[in-house]
Amino acid sequence: MLKELKSGINDVIFKGNATVVHPLNLYGCKIGNNCFIGPFVEIQRGARIGDNTRIQSHSFICDKVTIGSNCFIGHGVMFINDTFSETLKPTYSEAEGRWKETVIEDSVTIGSNVTILPVKICSGAVIGAGSVVTKNITAPGVYAGNPARLLRVIK
Amino acid sequence: MLKELKSGINDVIFKGNATVVHPLNLYGCKIGNNCFIGPFVEIQRGARIGDNTRIQSHSFICDKVTIGSNCFIGHGVMFINDTFSETLKPTYSEAEGRWKETVIEDSVTIGSNVTILPVKICSGAVIGAGSVVTKNITAPGVYAGNPARLLRVIK
Amino acid sequence: MLKELKSGINDVIFKGNATVVHPLNLYGCKIGNNCFIGPFVEIQRGARIGDNTRIQSHSFICDKVTIGSNCFIGHGVMFINDTFSETLKPTYSEAEGRWKETVIEDSVTIGSNVTILPVKICSGAVIGAGSVVTKNITAPGVYAGNPARLLRVIK
Repeated sequence: MLKELKSGINDVIFKGNATVVHPLNLYGCKIGNNCFIGPFVEIQRGARIGDNTRIQSHSFICDKVTIGSNCFIGHGVMFINDTFSETLKPTYSEAEGRWKETVIEDSVTIGSNVTILPVKICSGAVIGAGSVVTKNITAPGVYAGNPARLLRVIK
Repeated sequence: MLKELKSGINDVIFKGNATVVHPLNLYGCKIGNNCFIGPFVEIQRGARIGDNTRIQSHSFICDKVTIGSNCFIGHGVMFINDTFSETLKPTYSEAEGRWKETVIEDSVTIGSNVTILPVKICSGAVIGAGSVVTKNITAPGVYAGNPARLLRVIK
Repeated sequence: MLKELKSGINDVIFKGNATVVHPLNLYGCKIGNNCFIGPFVEIQRGARIGDNTRIQSHSFICDKVTIGSNCFIGHGVMFINDTFSETLKPTYSEAEGRWKETVIEDSVTIGSNVTILPVKICSGAVIGAGSVVTKNITAPGVYAGNPARLLRVIK
């Protein structure tokens, strides 16, 4: 049997104003005040987005991702909660307890086509387009590359 | 004249049960039993997907790609059949005979935002997020980077 | 209040024939004769596409991008006009004068999952899949990697 589901907005808590562009697939997440969410975006159950944050088209935000206020998430940015690292296989349920958290603090800017492993990125960081972020970022600066490395400190 | 086509499910052979999330664009492909296919996915004519395989959101699977059973294809994974290598131009039809095959064996795990050139990836391989796979992978292990390199053997 | 917009075709100038696959989001752009635009594509106000050019699924083309004729833009290609470089923050309006131009000349071939910073790419260039183009490309050749480097001159 073919089970056909539809993208849309289900079980989402909007704190205040928001602008979204369909088609997108938002479910079980919390969206802050004055956010913009572009088309072809999926935000899964458990994700939290702060106020005045923009999520551009084609991005994917999974469970266990918390994004702060005044952030910019570019186009085609992919977040990850499963690194396959313990079992070397995907974990299909959060109940197994292996998914990991990502925390993006306030005022973080993430370029397009960036891949973000489960890390913490501190306030004031700028991630260049096309980067793969594999480690925590703990100092404001511009980071880029695969894996992402510090290009320039922001004072 | 503007010709407007619509994404959907056309001329697809489903072997058994499957769950799909619209909008997606599936045509002329074969989908195994118990597969999941997320939103914003395109699977083209000629692609074959094995049983119990998950294709996550935003991925693109082209003609001449065969994916085995029990595979996990992350979000935003792009497969390729045209490497432009002979003519240094794209080939617009399979009839020209220049598109190349990709074979993903059973139980392969591919992270998000991965790019896969026309290669063979053996059973048990794990491809880290954001990688670009340019060569055949013939031994189980964890591979990552651009180009993807062996990080860790799986015994 | 939740403001819900819909993707579609708004305020687009089509020079002649074109084939497009919904859902996609095209607005305020110019599309040349005999173009193809795949599903899950966004092309923003100010972008211009030449004749006989193909824009494959999942790609994003922003304001200030001009693409020539007979180009091939692969799947999941992301263009960029804001490098965050002066302010280390995103610029939310073109009126601020900080967005930069990208010019793709005629007969350029761009592979899937490529990220293109604001640059000029000359006619005859081929960009390998998964690359990040950070500098102008001024000689025909095959370029790949992050950042993209010359692999092979085309004579």
